[in-house]
Amino acid sequence: MSPPEAAAELPADPPAGAQLLAEIREQPQALLTLLEHEPEYARAAVAARAHGTTTVRMVGHGSSDNAASYGVYAFGLLPRWTALRDSISLTVYYHSELDMSRSTVIGLSQSGQTPDVLAYVERARSRGALTIALTNDPASELAELAELVLPLAAGPERSVAATKTYLNQVAALALLAGHVSGHGRRLADDLRAVADQLAALIPAVEAQVPTIANAFAYIGRMFVIGRGVEFATAREIALKLLETCRIAADSLTATDLAHGPVAALDSLFPVWTIASHDEALPAVLEAAARARRTGATFVASGTAAREVVNADYFLPVPRPRSSLLSPLLSVVPGQLFAWALARAKGLDPDHPAGLTKVTLAN
Amino acid sequence: MSPPEAAAELPADPPAGAQLLAEIREQPQALLTLLEHEPEYARAAVAARAHGTTTVRMVGHGSSDNAASYGVYAFGLLPRWTALRDSISLTVYYHSELDMSRSTVIGLSQSGQTPDVLAYVERARSRGALTIALTNDPASELAELAELVLPLAAGPERSVAATKTYLNQVAALALLAGHVSGHGRRLADDLRAVADQLAALIPAVEAQVPTIANAFAYIGRMFVIGRGVEFATAREIALKLLETCRIAADSLTATDLAHGPVAALDSLFPVWTIASHDEALPAVLEAAARARRTGATFVASGTAAREVVNADYFLPVPRPRSSLLSPLLSVVPGQLFAWALARAKGLDPDHPAGLTKVTLAN
Repeated sequence: MSPPEAAAELPADPPAGAQLLAEIREQPQALLTLLEHEPEYARAAVAARAHGTTTVRMVGHGSSDNAASYGVYAFGLLPRWTALRDSISLTVYYHSELDMSRSTVIGLSQSGQTPDVLAYVERARSRGALTIALTNDPASELAELAELVLPLAAGPERSVAATKTYLNQVAALALLAGHVSGHGRRLADDLRAVADQLAALIPAVEAQVPTIANAFAYIGRMFVIGRGVEFATAREIALKLLETCRIAADSLTATDLAHGPVAALDSLFPVWTIASHDEALPAVLEAAARARRTGATFVASGTAAREVVNADYFLPVPRPRSSLLSPLLSVVPGQLFAWALARAKGLDPDHPAGLTKVTLAN
Repeated sequence: MSPPEAAAELPADPPAGAQLLAEIREQPQALLTLLEHEPEYARAAVAARAHGTTTVRMVGHGSSDNAASYGVYAFGLLPRWTALRDSISLTVYYHSELDMSRSTVIGLSQSGQTPDVLAYVERARSRGALTIALTNDPASELAELAELVLPLAAGPERSVAATKTYLNQVAALALLAGHVSGHGRRLADDLRAVADQLAALIPAVEAQVPTIANAFAYIGRMFVIGRGVEFATAREIALKLLETCRIAADSLTATDLAHGPVAALDSLFPVWTIASHDEALPAVLEAAARARRTGATFVASGTAAREVVNADYFLPVPRPRSSLLSPLLSVVPGQLFAWALARAKGLDPDHPAGLTKVTLAN
């Protein structure tokens, strides 16, 4: 019989999803660490203005592409620049010679190794764009290729499902857009306040989601709807549900839901609605009310979750000082719900089948 | 007892999906009718060049937005203009004052009545954009608001699921981009040849799909993948499956599938791959091969369908003269498969639950 001390030395297997949960919890700190790099963001903003930028082209895959959806609004609302999730294929595969002389390109890659993002940034640079690498690894190949490097500074992320790197990508795009528009300092302060709000929000939602997740244990499909700045959140929550819970989760603007997909809804095809306080809220509430008539189960999140009439579950988040920053808070209930639901389904969210952290092939 | 003549006079109920099938069959003729309007497209191209266009902004919902995905490539490959599916929210809800002085705006709406597309076009015009209405109803409000009207000329479309109007939107964007780049006449000839190819293809695929559809009668989720010019086709086929078959069908670029969603695949979560002969084909084939390892059932369509190794079902289409026009042929197997699968599932594709043809609210 072995002595009790010896048994105590054997480390217990961590519970399924422990890694993902740890990284979700690290987000307030990750955001504060990003803000230590504010001077680099301020300098990049000066360079983008000096370049004569009229268009921001963002490229990335998965969560990085979702963050780019947010960038469309950050640059559109602050410096009023046209920002787009550019087609990688057009440049990398079709070799189309677009004029990029007045473009700033942002390559988003946590690892800094995504092959077609590298290829795109290299060609965009040769075509006259100012190129910026937004990466968690400032020593990566992407960082080498681009003229400027903006560190994500999220710390090592081991979970396959991105959480803190997504949060920091969104914050980074807001911070850069803020500095371009001359409001960088105020935006950094507002982001610091969001870090405090996140620190209070995360444990509260963590306690709330397991009960709700149990009701979704047999769900195989979901829609996640949002609009405007929260469209990025809808895309990111759908991706978390797909990769950790094997749910066929599709993101849509609230309005697009009514153009066809509403036909698929029923009580086993729930809808997650992100409703936050801003100018797009009335359109979201109206589309949600129409979709609600199908009898689908509704989860409401966002700062205005309580305004989604007759939703079955509410996961509200606090309002940030600037409504542009709502997505940093709104994504948290989705991350934690995915974590809880994976466990309710008997899946290990730390080890999704068939996935590795870095996709090295195109 | 009524005489047999009286009974014969009572019209039999048309079979489920008869309307949708009729409109799918009308596509070759719809395309030829569109081409009768070529001079209007040539004039719009002159106006867009005279406007000093550098950026094309397209807005629409549902199938119209899917066609806009194609426009990104048509304008990117032919005149090498940056084209984007613009954010409607940014302009309509957030009132962001983007500089649109060097933009051509294309509002895509079959009915010409989609409220937020109308609102967008009105504001874009006041902000200096050249505005074009691409609509099936040249007497619609959208046509009134825009400076130029390009008729879709698809004839009345009664099915909720768009087919011939989608096809003509894709052809219209190709034709306009062709005229802008000085290749309009050749492109019109190539489109005429596509109409002939469609006329042969449609009955052949129509005969082929019912057997395949039976094998999918209990499927509730699918991915549809494509890349480059065929990404629009992936989006459109996914939408057809959603609205007529109630399948949670999500479209992805082939590469994005590997960034998370691949984790959800299994034998009951099939993948439809659109593989066509062009520069993006190697990336599509490589991503399909990786996803194939999950054991998911694969359907391969497109001009290069036969190159998708180990696919379970093949629905190839002929190669058009210009690879840019593949999407006009590749969409047909998806349309007909959705028609056949809806019937196999006991649904009426002519009357999807909860949908009306025109979405009048935002």
